[in-house]
Order: sequence, then C-alpha cells, then structure tokens
Amino acid sequence: MGKSILITGGARSGKSTHAEQTTLALGPRAIYIATAEAHDPEMAERIARHQARRGAEWRTISAPVELSDALDASDGEAPRLVDCLTLWLSNLMLADLDWDGATDALVRTIEAQRAPVVIVTNEVGAGIVPENALARRFRDAAGLVNQRVARMCDEVHLCVAGYPIKVKP
Amino acid sequence: MGKSILITGGARSGKSTHAEQTTLALGPRAIYIATAEAHDPEMAERIARHQARRGAEWRTISAPVELSDALDASDGEAPRLVDCLTLWLSNLMLADLDWDGATDALVRTIEAQRAPVVIVTNEVGAGIVPENALARRFRDAAGLVNQRVARMCDEVHLCVAGYPIKVKP
Amino acid sequence: MGKSILITGGARSGKSTHAEQTTLALGPRAIYIATAEAHDPEMAERIARHQARRGAEWRTISAPVELSDALDASDGEAPRLVDCLTLWLSNLMLADLDWDGATDALVRTIEAQRAPVVIVTNEVGAGIVPENALARRFRDAAGLVNQRVARMCDEVHLCVAGYPIKVKP
Repeated sequence: MGKSILITGGARSGKSTHAEQTTLALGPRAIYIATAEAHDPEMAERIARHQARRGAEWRTISAPVELSDALDASDGEAPRLVDCLTLWLSNLMLADLDWDGATDALVRTIEAQRAPVVIVTNEVGAGIVPENALARRFRDAAGLVNQRVARMCDEVHLCVAGYPIKVKP
Repeated sequence: MGKSILITGGARSGKSTHAEQTTLALGPRAIYIATAEAHDPEMAERIARHQARRGAEWRTISAPVELSDALDASDGEAPRLVDCLTLWLSNLMLADLDWDGATDALVRTIEAQRAPVVIVTNEVGAGIVPENALARRFRDAAGLVNQRVARMCDEVHLCVAGYPIKVKP
Repeated sequence: MGKSILITGGARSGKSTHAEQTTLALGPRAIYIATAEAHDPEMAERIARHQARRGAEWRTISAPVELSDALDASDGEAPRLVDCLTLWLSNLMLADLDWDGATDALVRTIEAQRAPVVIVTNEVGAGIVPENALARRFRDAAGLVNQRVARMCDEVHLCVAGYPIKVKP
C-alpha cells in the first residue's frame, strides 16, 4: 500500500498549501484530483486561484463524484493529491447518491493504492449546531467520512494558521 | 480523587467512541450517565444508535440536569462516562436554570469523586460568530464550562477525525 | 526582532487569559492594545469584563484600525498584547479599508518590533460554510490573516478548553 495522508483543518487554515508541499515531497511530479465543480463565479474564482498556485509539475484530473475510479485510474508512480473530501461528499449528497457506500468503497480503494495519496478534508463540526437540518446531516456525514478515511490513512495532520499538528500516528 | 478526563472535539470527531474506550480501560464495568433527552425523532435516533454501540458491560443513568447528583449517587468502584456536558448546559439554559452555579457545583463534585469520571464535551466556538444572540450566549457559556471543568480534570483530550490530541497534562 | 507569539482558538477557549499570562512572563509591565470598539452594550460589557480582570501592571491603548501605528508607537521595553486580530480585521472590512494591504504592513511591522508582541486571534473557519456571502468572505480573510501573521511569529499556540497546544515551532 502506498503511503496515505489525510490533511484536515478549518477554512483557510493552510491545508491545500501544506498538502501540495507534502505531495511534492513524495515525488517530483504529482497528480491533482479535483473534486470541485465551478457551479458559480465564487467557486470558479477559487478553483482558478488554486490552479494558478500549482506549477507545471502538476497534472489535473477532475473527479467531483467518481473519486475511487480516479484514484484507481491514476495509480502509478506519481503521488496524488485529492482536494477535497468535503466537496466530494457535498457533490454526492446533492446528487442524492449513496455517500455511505461510496465512503466504504473509497476506504477500500485507498487501501489498494500502490502510489501515495494525500487527501485534503475540512473541519466543519466545531461551530454552533446549525439550525438547518440538511446542514446538520452534512456536518455529521462529513465527520463520519473523516473518521473512516483517517482510520485507513497512515498519517493525519490538522492545520492551524498554516502549521500542521500531527494527529496520527 | 478518582481520575478525571475531559474529552472534547467537534461534531462526529470520534469523542464518544474514544470516551467509551477510555472509560472501559479504567474498569471492566462502567456507568453511562446520559444528559440527552429524546425531545425529537432526530435525537431519539441518535440516542438509540449510541446505546446500540455500547455493550452489556454498561449500565445507563439519565441525568439531563441533575448531573452532580448522578455522579455522587453512582460513585463506587465503576468508572462513569458523562455524555455530554454541552447537552447538559443546553438543558440548564433551556430550563432557565443557573448554569453558572451548577458548573461550580459540578467542578466541586468532580473533585470529590472517588471513582473515575470521563466527561465528553463539544467544541462549538470555532465557527463564525452566530447572528442569533441566544446562540452567542450558549457558545460563550459552553466555552466557559469547558474551561472550568478542564481545569479540574487530570487530562484533556481533543478528538480530530477519531484521534485524540492530548491537551493536558 | 522582539519575540512574537500568536495565540489562536475558538470563542471562550481561554485565549485572552493565556495571552495575558504569556505577556506578563515577558516583562513586569505590559501594554494592552485593544482592537475592540464598544459599538453595542454586549461588546461594552465584554470590554469592561476583560479590563477588570487585568491588573495595575497594564496600560491600555485603543487601536481598532491603526494597529501597526500602535505597535510602532508603543515599541520600547514593555511587551505588548494585541487583542484581537479578528476584531481588527472586522473593523477594517466594515470600514471598507484595504485589509489585505494592512495585513502586509502589519507583518512588516511585527518583524521590525524590538519589544515582544503577543497577538490574540480567533479560529472562525471550523464550522459549516456560512450561507451569508459576507460571512464567507470574512472567514476566508480571517484565515488568511492568521496564516500570514503566524508565518512571521516565532510561536503559534492553539487554545483548547483553556490549555495551549504548541503549533509552532
């Protein structure tokens, strides 16, 4: 099994930059697996900003929903960076797909990878309980997905103000 | 004084599972002190799910408000798990009871326990400031309760994606 | 360059108390640089409560917006405590000022200080994505400001339930 690292943190905690550096430390070329879709101008701007920051050593694959397939198809020598699990979950839930089963499949897929995988996710459960029932279901699901992926990964890092705290091992 | 451990974290960060394992490591049988009340189907479902996960080594006591009494009444040989402080605070505030005085009493009660106590609480203050004034008061109170209980406890753990970070000692 | 320490955490996580103790450990007298403005009774009460807790060894300067100027003007022998960066950012954004440029200037100012600086900030990005676009912009900006100031500071501490976790170095 290739090395697997889960990187979590709040919004703008430096997760993506830390994940990019961590991925490039695992190989001179890397594959970026993007789960974001440019549904609106705000998201399109954020995607463009992230892409501009990455250099020529990156190849980008889009996988808003079929994340396990994208991992299997890209499994070779280069490390992969998945950014991010929370958007993937959101895409699954918005399309009314089985996120629970997809998470099981993802965990087995991560276990089977030969090349390294770095996965970015988000902390979304440390605020006040949302009044909106859908938001509550989403934050519960996001926490459960994080736990299940973390259990499979070799390392878990929590980013705070740009600096990682090693949570696992 | 029996060992006391405070376990905090965001929603679905693995607090309850970690707290159950921590409690059972302190004794072969344990007492679960539940502060949750099944006011609505969502909460009833969550309570049932948590109970189903615990095994026959657990005895359950309900203490939505009278937490100090429940600790004193159950103080013997078995470790106790209180799940959770945030719901207890919420129950006090909703009933317009003196949460500040009750927290003072709880801290003294924890200090006086002979058997171990493991206490689950929640991080609720790391999101955007809520627009709702009641929510702001609640998150302030929750943070203050966490601080005061943490000061009395021997250990404080922060759960992230299922893994504890030792915050104290 | 004087020692610089960034202290972050959620609401009521014990940041201010930890920051005050950290500052007084750096000198017998200290300067408190307050970014809060008493716009409403809730804020006025909070400011008064914080001031009452601090003792006679503190001199207070108000700097809701001109934080870099306040640091330069107070740079002498006594350590300074800035409380807090999040309110400063909020004041800049509400006044439609250039927070991005002001943050660049602040980072250069911190670098140039001879006396120590302890800076309190907030974790605001670990809840559900806010529905409000302004709130999303604010939490993004707050995270970026934290990262940029953290990079310049010698130490970064994350407070949880009153206890600091050393994030940097």
